Amino acid sequence: MKDRYYIGIDLGGTNLKIALFDSTCRIIGRQVLPTEIFAQPKSLITAIVSSVNAIMAGRRLNTSAILGIGIGLPGPVDVTQGVVHFFPNIPGWKEVPLRSILEEKLGLPVFVDNDANLMCLAEYKAGAARGSTNAVCLTLGTGVGGGLIIDGRLFRGSSFAAGEIGHVPINEHGPACNCGGVACLESYIGNRRIAHRVRMIFKKDIPLEDLSRMARRGNAKAAAIWKDVGRKLGVALVGVVNLLNPDRIVIGGGVANAGSVLFDAVSETILMQAMVVQAKKVRVTKAQLGSDAGMIGAAFLVKEETDKRKTAR
Amino acid sequence: MKDRYYIGIDLGGTNLKIALFDSTCRIIGRQVLPTEIFAQPKSLITAIVSSVNAIMAGRRLNTSAILGIGIGLPGPVDVTQGVVHFFPNIPGWKEVPLRSILEEKLGLPVFVDNDANLMCLAEYKAGAARGSTNAVCLTLGTGVGGGLIIDGRLFRGSSFAAGEIGHVPINEHGPACNCGGVACLESYIGNRRIAHRVRMIFKKDIPLEDLSRMARRGNAKAAAIWKDVGRKLGVALVGVVNLLNPDRIVIGGGVANAGSVLFDAVSETILMQAMVVQAKKVRVTKAQLGSDAGMIGAAFLVKEETDKRKTAR
Repeated sequence: MKDRYYIGIDLGGTNLKIALFDSTCRIIGRQVLPTEIFAQPKSLITAIVSSVNAIMAGRRLNTSAILGIGIGLPGPVDVTQGVVHFFPNIPGWKEVPLRSILEEKLGLPVFVDNDANLMCLAEYKAGAARGSTNAVCLTLGTGVGGGLIIDGRLFRGSSFAAGEIGHVPINEHGPACNCGGVACLESYIGNRRIAHRVRMIFKKDIPLEDLSRMARRGNAKAAAIWKDVGRKLGVALVGVVNLLNPDRIVIGGGVANAGSVLFDAVSETILMQAMVVQAKKVRVTKAQLGSDAGMIGAAFLVKEETDKRKTAR
Repeated sequence: MKDRYYIGIDLGGTNLKIALFDSTCRIIGRQVLPTEIFAQPKSLITAIVSSVNAIMAGRRLNTSAILGIGIGLPGPVDVTQGVVHFFPNIPGWKEVPLRSILEEKLGLPVFVDNDANLMCLAEYKAGAARGSTNAVCLTLGTGVGGGLIIDGRLFRGSSFAAGEIGHVPINEHGPACNCGGVACLESYIGNRRIAHRVRMIFKKDIPLEDLSRMARRGNAKAAAIWKDVGRKLGVALVGVVNLLNPDRIVIGGGVANAGSVLFDAVSETILMQAMVVQAKKVRVTKAQLGSDAGMIGAAFLVKEETDKRKTAR
């Protein structure tokens, strides 16, 4: 049998990333475009189509060699219908039937899911959650996203919206969150909030990568900021750990680069405050797949879905 | 084929309840004993054995007519090994291999789980969560217990300890909880805490059933207490709803009798503060099976497990 490939796409607020994967879901070619140049859904869809065609042409592949295309999307989607409800950070998208549009234009099966779910699937299949049974994956950035592996499968919830760890409240009263909630984890530890604390404490702007470096080198003020982030994240995770009794928590995204000062505060909070049986069972670890996780998860989504169809036949 | 039966047992801090079920998991006979008279695990186990024998004798059934015995237990258990780790409210139990002891004494298959899980299974199979796909079940009493139905199955977590909604923190700082946690939901809305508030406000003790009646009849102070309980419960459930995107939340236990003042506060908090997609999907409803839920869940546990074995053969 000839070689078969998957295409994985990660549509972010900043970049549109596309990769070609071999049959074991390893990246063998990639392409990145800035998202912001595509003002309309229509032009973004056109860009996706020409990128897919270009990446296939680069390897002289035609559609018969491609098993399918997976796409991770930065907002709520109807996974079954393949419809984008909206994107919080990309204007113009509202109830767009992205899957059927792309399937028609490309002549290939298309599968969609939100980016946090696909990051989680990727870490479970090929990263830091491999070998676990129940895993909680987080990405810490401007937003705090999450995905759940439950009994060895990606859990999507009753309207494909499960996993929103960033919107678990950690106080009864607190800052209003963009989501409409109150005192959501994200409103305490989202990038913007950390940057705000940095300005309060250092009286100037410091990029968060530099703040991480300062903490690693022993700057006490920088370490205190990350420790507080870890403790607040820990409080939300105590609830998640007591509720779901996972064996693995995977933390990714730029903020995860703060290193041990952050991770130690998270683990200590869980160990101190979660129930004994649950706390003893769970291991907190850094994500392994970095910014490729979305594309890798998209490829695994295609693999899972097409394998399922094979079995069903 | 002759009729087959299940036996469902609910071991609580107060009562040991045993029922005989027909093949559709309907109760056809029952027996209740006070738990406290059995000071040792040994005497409690003897009481279980003689109750099971008595309930079978009452119908002139021998073991060949019984498919198995299910037991709901008031503490953490190893479901696979059938071992009781301990009971918070019944002294003397520590790593007791209850299943193998009972299987030897009774000559019947025995299945164990914790009581909150079995309450949840019962409401899912025959009560207020019937027809849902992802359900969160709570019992409000001295403790706040919980169970989860995930994608149509009871979810137990990586060490059979999932579902502890009572130990989701609702604040970063707050009262110390018996579990070792801080600001757990239970430490705000457990029966004892509500009774304490009653004493503060009314300057006397009022049984919670009376407080519920007073609220239903329009007593503003009583209503305010229940409203606050509902709001705090709502905050914990906002986190659960954003995380798990369930389609049903079932609330049982004595406190659930407070009625609409409590349920309205819960629903309002979810509607106001949970994310739109998740909030729109979920329905909050009162448990239907009352204090029989534990036994009914135990019978369904036997049914599920023995059906599984049949399929596997």
